[in-house]
Amino acid sequence: MQISIIGTGNMGTAIAKNFKAAGNEVTTIGHDQVVKEFGELVVFAVPFEAEAGLADQYKHLLAGKIVVDISNPLNFTTWDELEVPSNSSAAALLQKELPAAKVLKAFNTTFAGTLTAGKVGATPTTVLVAGDDEEAKQTFMKALDGSPLRVKDAGLLKRARELEAMGFLQITLANRKQITWMGGFGVNA
Amino acid sequence: MQISIIGTGNMGTAIAKNFKAAGNEVTTIGHDQVVKEFGELVVFAVPFEAEAGLADQYKHLLAGKIVVDISNPLNFTTWDELEVPSNSSAAALLQKELPAAKVLKAFNTTFAGTLTAGKVGATPTTVLVAGDDEEAKQTFMKALDGSPLRVKDAGLLKRARELEAMGFLQITLANRKQITWMGGFGVNA
Repeated sequence: MQISIIGTGNMGTAIAKNFKAAGNEVTTIGHDQVVKEFGELVVFAVPFEAEAGLADQYKHLLAGKIVVDISNPLNFTTWDELEVPSNSSAAALLQKELPAAKVLKAFNTTFAGTLTAGKVGATPTTVLVAGDDEEAKQTFMKALDGSPLRVKDAGLLKRARELEAMGFLQITLANRKQITWMGGFGVNA
Repeated sequence: MQISIIGTGNMGTAIAKNFKAAGNEVTTIGHDQVVKEFGELVVFAVPFEAEAGLADQYKHLLAGKIVVDISNPLNFTTWDELEVPSNSSAAALLQKELPAAKVLKAFNTTFAGTLTAGKVGATPTTVLVAGDDEEAKQTFMKALDGSPLRVKDAGLLKRARELEAMGFLQITLANRKQITWMGGFGVNA
């Protein structure tokens, strides 16, 4: 599958590695690079603040595509709240900005280190994915099949609120040195 | 330490086992039993719906006590939302109902099965605890020291919102058979 990853930071690099390991053709796109065409699946591996601008810039090119939001919309001044309404999520906001795209929430509950290692503690790193389009979710899972990652279906895009709460909690645990950035939440069957 | 656990269900039983294993004197209290005196630490191992009534009934006896809220306030009809305001939590509501008690949120991100087993997958079962009273949190941690459980400090009681989102997500994952009731979220350092 042709996969486009916007963002060349730790997260974009770690995500690209896994999609490549599963046999996909992955293009990573720098923040200020102008794109003429995207793959079937597009990962926004950028900070929450950059998403609305990207959505606006590429609205037409992203119509019909699977768009993966990985953001944790923390207020990094206070480290005490999210910058989205408490009954919504960054993913839900992005879906509103891109009504013709199939938005998924994924990768926000896994640190870059554990995506790269493929393990968190003794547990295989597990990606939780939420979204309203079942076919898009199946395509996402298939695209990671063959990587070291496991994927679990977290339900409809509405669950992005809970995924973002969990990502927020995990980041504050690391920031407060209760866990390391190589640790965090494992998902056990 | 003298510990009172209100509720004799799966969760109350599993929590009692761990406090006993750590050498505390644990009293378990049935739902319809009338109590004259509580220990220093009181666990509300009852459904969310029962908490307000207990708080009202025992407001005076619970003044100065550490009260542990373990609830996951799901709407079990829809399995799709929490029954608390999206910017608050069951624990925050309980603290309002018991202003003279020191409310902690704990045990809501660990299923009864993994509290009993002491492991989730290959990871020691880890309790996340949030609360505004630092001394109460330290006392809680000390009371579990010697049990098979690990405890991590999740921050102020405000973080109960995220803990309840995580508990909600975990329950829906099990209900949708993505994980079992013996599995769930591990916490890796």
